[in-house]
Amino acid sequence: MNAHSAATETALAYFHAWSGHDVDKAMAYIADDIVCESPGGRIEGADAYRAFLEPFVGIVTGTRMLAAFGDERTALVMYDTSTLPVTSAPAAELVTVRDGVITNSRIIFDRLPFPPPPQ
Amino acid sequence: MNAHSAATETALAYFHAWSGHDVDKAMAYIADDIVCESPGGRIEGADAYRAFLEPFVGIVTGTRMLAAFGDERTALVMYDTSTLPVTSAPAAELVTVRDGVITNSRIIFDRLPFPPPPQ
Repeated sequence: MNAHSAATETALAYFHAWSGHDVDKAMAYIADDIVCESPGGRIEGADAYRAFLEPFVGIVTGTRMLAAFGDERTALVMYDTSTLPVTSAPAAELVTVRDGVITNSRIIFDRLPFPPPPQ
Repeated sequence: MNAHSAATETALAYFHAWSGHDVDKAMAYIADDIVCESPGGRIEGADAYRAFLEPFVGIVTGTRMLAAFGDERTALVMYDTSTLPVTSAPAAELVTVRDGVITNSRIIFDRLPFPPPPQ
């Protein structure tokens, strides 16, 4: 297997941080002006992103990286997660990295098995 | 950008075939004994896979590849689709390729915006 690209290294470091339930460390890889397209809609800015990430990390009981590829600026990863409500909840993330932080992210996962978020 | 890997070329050829509503051509890239993990469960064999793919292709009105990476045996792609019921329905696929056909596939998309499949 080839060495990971710079962007892939950042995506993996971010993944391992939140997988270890270390939200502060994970947020160190997130740009202040991140724009994230998630199944639930667009998330803009690090504060909003943390409000999206932290509750999810709170229900994660296990993770497994399935594949990680990328080039200098872009990384695409797919991983599986175990969560309290859903045994297997895989996701994919396409991220753009600038100066070691994620500036843009597109996240795909299946919301159907999850209970609806609080309104 | 680097040249695509062999597996990525297969994943892209498969994508372009079904994007063009050519299910027969798409199925030429699918192994007879394909095993696919989809949000709705495991799909085994080309007949079952076609029964999964064909109704989806029937509602697709547009597609856009967002990223495609891989190595000799594995490809990971993310694309957006426009469909009759859902304007933007992105998906990610992790595929294993053997002799130019996809033998294993993991597909992630958000089922929530789609109407439930017929029982």
